[in-house]
Amino acid sequence: MRAIVLDTAVRLEGNRPAPTPINDEVLVRVRCAGICETDLQLIKGYMGFRGVLGHEFVGIAESGPHAGQRVVGEINCACWSCDVCERGLPTHCPNRTVLGIVNHDGAFADLIAVPQRNLHPVPDTIPDDVAVFTEPVAAALQIPVQLDIDRADRIVVLGDGRLGNLCAQVLAGLSDHVVVVGKHREKLALLEALGIETVALEDLRKERQADVVVDVTGSETGLPTALSIVRPRGTIVLKTTIAGAQTLAWAPFVIDEVTLVGSRCGPFDRALDALENGLVDVSGLVSTRFDLSRGVEALEHARTQPVLKVLLDVAAS
Amino acid sequence: MRAIVLDTAVRLEGNRPAPTPINDEVLVRVRCAGICETDLQLIKGYMGFRGVLGHEFVGIAESGPHAGQRVVGEINCACWSCDVCERGLPTHCPNRTVLGIVNHDGAFADLIAVPQRNLHPVPDTIPDDVAVFTEPVAAALQIPVQLDIDRADRIVVLGDGRLGNLCAQVLAGLSDHVVVVGKHREKLALLEALGIETVALEDLRKERQADVVVDVTGSETGLPTALSIVRPRGTIVLKTTIAGAQTLAWAPFVIDEVTLVGSRCGPFDRALDALENGLVDVSGLVSTRFDLSRGVEALEHARTQPVLKVLLDVAAS
Repeated sequence: MRAIVLDTAVRLEGNRPAPTPINDEVLVRVRCAGICETDLQLIKGYMGFRGVLGHEFVGIAESGPHAGQRVVGEINCACWSCDVCERGLPTHCPNRTVLGIVNHDGAFADLIAVPQRNLHPVPDTIPDDVAVFTEPVAAALQIPVQLDIDRADRIVVLGDGRLGNLCAQVLAGLSDHVVVVGKHREKLALLEALGIETVALEDLRKERQADVVVDVTGSETGLPTALSIVRPRGTIVLKTTIAGAQTLAWAPFVIDEVTLVGSRCGPFDRALDALENGLVDVSGLVSTRFDLSRGVEALEHARTQPVLKVLLDVAAS
Repeated sequence: MRAIVLDTAVRLEGNRPAPTPINDEVLVRVRCAGICETDLQLIKGYMGFRGVLGHEFVGIAESGPHAGQRVVGEINCACWSCDVCERGLPTHCPNRTVLGIVNHDGAFADLIAVPQRNLHPVPDTIPDDVAVFTEPVAAALQIPVQLDIDRADRIVVLGDGRLGNLCAQVLAGLSDHVVVVGKHREKLALLEALGIETVALEDLRKERQADVVVDVTGSETGLPTALSIVRPRGTIVLKTTIAGAQTLAWAPFVIDEVTLVGSRCGPFDRALDALENGLVDVSGLVSTRFDLSRGVEALEHARTQPVLKVLLDVAAS
């Protein structure tokens, strides 16, 4: 099969053996996959990953209860037998692999092996180009899982990229005061068209007024900016993951009694509901499409251009 | 009056003018004051403070409704008219001064000016040497104000110093699984004598098992250690304030969905109740006493010796 493989660099393999399912895994024939900021970080050395990239996908299950159906797959492959799993936190299983991120080949390939229990069938009303957003929409929906949001909360989303857009849409359904701060006129215009208020980063006033600040910048400038606008006793939701160590004065967290909430993967069932019911609109998010065979070029495009979502078409080719 | 003053260095002034009360301030004749880690950080440059040091004290009000009574005083002097004050967060007033910390002379002196509404009369049953702990006990009691503590929570307090001891005592009243991690055999023994489990830092196992970790180390090693033992979706309470910036990998907050809660000043009324009812035992915490006139020596002693609380006797001299 074809696969986009990361080792010392990223390359297309044209004749890689199909993955061998282990435990309760089934093979999924990928139809469409999305490039995520995490993929770009992995290429820069984050997590030290080696293997097939990709964790946002929709495909057809080749066997198991969903054989022949379109499915999306949760990315954390838990052991289901350790203390953490038994406490109900399988996404934090210390023995887990993670599709395309930790010790498990990913979805930028014709076939991916996914644990059966990770699969969710996709309703017929959700096209592939929408279903492929299930994973990042779930990540956005993790914020209200972790945090009670009030309609009166003043929320600032730092970052107008792929995940920032989805977080803003989710939060705008829960609060009347969501503002997205970004650097890119076109990306902010897309949010404005959805009725979401935006501010260009250079116009951001460093007033400490926000009840909640969500850092989806993907940059180490995000957290210091968040600290400069969160109110005392306010909350910063950290979505940004960066390789290596960062420098920050931590005293303001204490002095201003700020809470920092790290937030990662979220509920696929709610994400599929949100996509089916139009609570989240991903129609403007696809910037560019590449055939899987041009995956290396697609990753370079996503890294260097001010794009939103870059999709890889796998099945059509 | 006498005062311990910080400008380019710390010195005793023997003939400093008494402070002039402004707004609703009253003069308090200090009887006893305590040296806190924050005082030592201020001397190292934290907050850029210049003036009379000291914010833990008990004294006699010279005027106002409590004239002639023993009082303790909350340290944040709010404006009571800004948005933050009107939202019920006077300890976070952006216009505030802070006794002995921000633009307000402190308590290492014969007299201190304190806003009348900051004063709490001290019950007769609480001696000076106990009442002087009201401020740090309140800081410890701020943790359960910010965080729901369950009896089953596995809590690790990192730091066996003054505030660590008080945090451990407060939390041991709320959870059955409190462990204090420290470097000092004598300080750990004091906690053991109170029935609180302890572990020497070199014996700490880096297992990610703690539901709550409280960083009271006063050291930049505290937060990385906390991250190495907090469980996924666990909480780190940050009490440590350090001058300058620290280097740390932030990604684990996101990957493990850890919450960090910055925690500072707490409720004086609950602290006085806890001291009066013996819920917190400070009898073993006083290591050394100095007369105020030897305050510079006392600060140096607190900085260099493995002591718990160093007190300054002010009235007796």
